[in-house]
Amino acid sequence: MRADARDNRARIMTAADDVFGRSPGASTDDVAKLAGVGIATVFRHFATKTELLEAVLTLRLERLRDRALELAGGDDPGTAFFEFFTQVVSESASKLAIGEALTASGVAAGEEARTAGRGMREAFDSLLTAAQKSGAVRADAGFGEVYALLIGASRGATAANLDPETRDRMLSLLYDGLKPRL
Amino acid sequence: MRADARDNRARIMTAADDVFGRSPGASTDDVAKLAGVGIATVFRHFATKTELLEAVLTLRLERLRDRALELAGGDDPGTAFFEFFTQVVSESASKLAIGEALTASGVAAGEEARTAGRGMREAFDSLLTAAQKSGAVRADAGFGEVYALLIGASRGATAANLDPETRDRMLSLLYDGLKPRL
Repeated sequence: MRADARDNRARIMTAADDVFGRSPGASTDDVAKLAGVGIATVFRHFATKTELLEAVLTLRLERLRDRALELAGGDDPGTAFFEFFTQVVSESASKLAIGEALTASGVAAGEEARTAGRGMREAFDSLLTAAQKSGAVRADAGFGEVYALLIGASRGATAANLDPETRDRMLSLLYDGLKPRL
Repeated sequence: MRADARDNRARIMTAADDVFGRSPGASTDDVAKLAGVGIATVFRHFATKTELLEAVLTLRLERLRDRALELAGGDDPGTAFFEFFTQVVSESASKLAIGEALTASGVAAGEEARTAGRGMREAFDSLLTAAQKSGAVRADAGFGEVYALLIGASRGATAANLDPETRDRMLSLLYDGLKPRL
């Protein structure tokens, strides 16, 4: 791919992330406008809106995985775990909007997005295990229920349209439940 | 309404609760079959599928409110609060399916369902306040964040398609966060 085509692709994905993250029902034309390219250029890179949505969702999941891996490299596994949890929940409204737009397009997430989702879950699992070893998270909490809490907190914050302060108080209650009983 | 018409209406609502709770995309015809009445009888009671969905959602919310009020009358406010929380989360998959079907029909929940939702939230707030007074729930938890946890746990359990054991372990972590710090 030539450098200007690569630039266009990156610009389209950034615009799509923004546009679909705010309103799932937005059109490819809205994306083209924000990216400052013609609609034909968008379709040259992404043949359908579904393809574009999937690329954006995959990018989001890969970024979260990378962030988890970066945090896992630090020397405070407890802080890393709770920081990542908070980041996922904070970003959930726009990520869910993109997921919803994909569902509304009637296509299940394809192989790329599923692989990225798996990578994110594995990275989260590593963060959890390290936080448990360090004593920051109770040892009797299994991945299944902790992951369900992550999904639940994300969806709860989005569905209830929480302001950041209430969201933080919700997370603080939840984190107290994840910490070892004294 | 004559007695046999009342019976039919109740039978249709029970069937609709079951059918739409399992698959939001089901048809009014499926409801008629399960209720053992003709499709014309269904439409005599509910002019549109949306009307039927809304009646079922309203009934669900009213039942939850009644259950909360019943529990609030007992002499153990802590147990009452956690029991109600668990019941809402356990029933969430089918309730959310009905809510989704209503959203998919393109109509916002009408006045009846909104009033029933408000009644349910108020009853939940009473349970929370009583549980806090009794010392079973920490006093510094506000209604906004506790209600967000209720919504979140419901959606998390549904989205992650949790088996009952994982759901109970998720709730147990969450309840530890709601109990007073020792």
